[in-house]
Amino acid sequence: MHIPKGFRFAATQAGFKHAGKLDLGAVVSDNPAIAAGVFTTNKFQAAPVLQCREMLDSGRKMSGFLVNSGQANACTGDQGRANCRETLNLAAMALDIPADELLPASTGVIGAQFDMNKWEAAMPALAKSLGTVSPEETAKAIMTTDTVHKLAEASFELKGGTVRLLGMCKGAGMISPNMATMLSFIACDADISTEAWQTMLTDCVNLSINRVTVDGDMSTNDCVMALANGASGIAIESEEEYILLRKHLLEVLEELAYKIVMDAEGGTKVAFIQVSGAKNDADAERVARAVGNSPLVKTALFGSDPNWGRIICAAGYSGADFNPEELVLKIGGVLVFRNGTPEPGNMDDLLNPIMAERDIVIHLDIGEGPGSSMLLASDLSREYVSINADYRS
Amino acid sequence: MHIPKGFRFAATQAGFKHAGKLDLGAVVSDNPAIAAGVFTTNKFQAAPVLQCREMLDSGRKMSGFLVNSGQANACTGDQGRANCRETLNLAAMALDIPADELLPASTGVIGAQFDMNKWEAAMPALAKSLGTVSPEETAKAIMTTDTVHKLAEASFELKGGTVRLLGMCKGAGMISPNMATMLSFIACDADISTEAWQTMLTDCVNLSINRVTVDGDMSTNDCVMALANGASGIAIESEEEYILLRKHLLEVLEELAYKIVMDAEGGTKVAFIQVSGAKNDADAERVARAVGNSPLVKTALFGSDPNWGRIICAAGYSGADFNPEELVLKIGGVLVFRNGTPEPGNMDDLLNPIMAERDIVIHLDIGEGPGSSMLLASDLSREYVSINADYRS
Repeated sequence: MHIPKGFRFAATQAGFKHAGKLDLGAVVSDNPAIAAGVFTTNKFQAAPVLQCREMLDSGRKMSGFLVNSGQANACTGDQGRANCRETLNLAAMALDIPADELLPASTGVIGAQFDMNKWEAAMPALAKSLGTVSPEETAKAIMTTDTVHKLAEASFELKGGTVRLLGMCKGAGMISPNMATMLSFIACDADISTEAWQTMLTDCVNLSINRVTVDGDMSTNDCVMALANGASGIAIESEEEYILLRKHLLEVLEELAYKIVMDAEGGTKVAFIQVSGAKNDADAERVARAVGNSPLVKTALFGSDPNWGRIICAAGYSGADFNPEELVLKIGGVLVFRNGTPEPGNMDDLLNPIMAERDIVIHLDIGEGPGSSMLLASDLSREYVSINADYRS
Repeated sequence: MHIPKGFRFAATQAGFKHAGKLDLGAVVSDNPAIAAGVFTTNKFQAAPVLQCREMLDSGRKMSGFLVNSGQANACTGDQGRANCRETLNLAAMALDIPADELLPASTGVIGAQFDMNKWEAAMPALAKSLGTVSPEETAKAIMTTDTVHKLAEASFELKGGTVRLLGMCKGAGMISPNMATMLSFIACDADISTEAWQTMLTDCVNLSINRVTVDGDMSTNDCVMALANGASGIAIESEEEYILLRKHLLEVLEELAYKIVMDAEGGTKVAFIQVSGAKNDADAERVARAVGNSPLVKTALFGSDPNWGRIICAAGYSGADFNPEELVLKIGGVLVFRNGTPEPGNMDDLLNPIMAERDIVIHLDIGEGPGSSMLLASDLSREYVSINADYRS
């Protein structure tokens, strides 16, 4: 793992989750970094989301992230905001950076207040871990129902040298395409302007993390935040340099997005839902979301059942404007339905081996329009129900 | 069971489903009846839906319903339309009524063509059963994954005598509030105009069957159709008479709606989601649907887990326009959340006995506006996944 220059990682057990689990982490940049963020559009925004938006609106450089799992600090009112600020004060002192340069994020149960004694008690261990743990440990500290930690990296050469990017995220449930629907952190050692970094992040999130769905539930705590600290000494100034960094940032975010769906709560499948020929991108997205969020499509995926009528049905109620006679459905490249009629032949024999795979490509061409969209969707399993019915998460 | 005057019922085993199961039924009125219908808004409309809409558009009186389970005759193109008409010809001859007065409906797997030999072979038995079976048998013949047949009745007195209403429906999955999302048939022996009957039916469906959700999936075959044959000899002419019939029609439809959610695939709970104080009814409905369709809310219901943060979260991403500070959440009458903050005290102790019930009232007051909505929602269980992953339905 090639860590971007000038970043250190921290992780410890604060007791927010079960004993023996990492649940508090930090990423610290040696020098203040250009910072960008994309946040949930849920009306109920968690205290750390409100705090980060306020901090990023100031346009100031930032020195790091402070992340806990086990509690979301969402729907916690004024006390939640005050607790959030107090955790920043405690951690900033412990990590020796200014409190107004530390971006907070939280994930876990909604509605419970922080136990500030646990936060205070965890500070010495958090400080001690800084610079001694790997990014893997920090990525583990932000997991909730995730079964694996999620990291992605990229690097590329410019004439001045190598630029490195490292991303980490958590997320397995309460995942929907309207916004990031998880926590994701990007560290980059390029030198770039605030405006360019924010634009690049927003664009890339829309093309990656906003294109996944597990259960259609958009969380109160979603955020993707990115720091660019310039420690590589390489400036992103020309259009070519911008395009190259954007390409690699998108790769990192796409890899994280895939990893979220691969680790979806109880998930066993990743459906790549591609929609083309729509009147516009919004209509294409409506179809992709209707298919990707349909419990009937998702249970058919889980059962490896080529029950394609459920896909057509979901497209039909999506609200997108199209002529049903023009819809062409292919699954794994096999033509299944066109001109309002199923293809002749024993479709089950053709589709069964495709449905048995982990990754399944579902392509809906719904007309002659220029609109297109893509969505990564998980399946819906008994395990998903068990995870969310039997445990408080 | 008080059967409306002038209606007879039929049911037989045609072999569309497993051997030994009733899967073909009919309701016949002795004289042509005023007919009304409400149909799915899915872009892909099943052949029988297209056929019924065409027939009802003619404004003609109708003499009955012909319903099969086991196959939906949806996404079957021109051949599906031709097959649908041919089944009407066969059944009309067998039942001795005009083919253009017999309204078809189908439910089952999408995309497969009818086996017309099975239809032909079933006609003698269907004809023989007419008038000899009870409405229960016909209601059983239209079941798919339903575990119980669903009937509701009402009667009331006018000065001329008694008016009777009988409703039956099927539906346990692919149930969503945008339209009827199931098959439902109403028989009434009042004498009423076509316009009044259609208006009454549309109004009452919007207040009952359109207010339920199992999985947010709107079927290709949904319909509610109602016949009023006037056989009671009692005319509905005054406003008082109209209001009285409407009240009883609504009661029948509400009972059927509740029975659908009670029999939801794998369902163990019925949540009554009430939203008030919205800017308008559409916003209230957005909140109710977001909560009622959230897999996380539904799995919490299944687990009897008072994890109220998921309800707030769903309201927050519903797209409704409201101020989160004004939202007040009550579960089973217990105040849980207001002013952006959870109520103090041990909420779990208060809510656990409420969540253990079968029927759970969730009330969200989201502001000072006049908009309100109600939705009946099922929970999401491992059994739902099993039903839809392991069996082709």
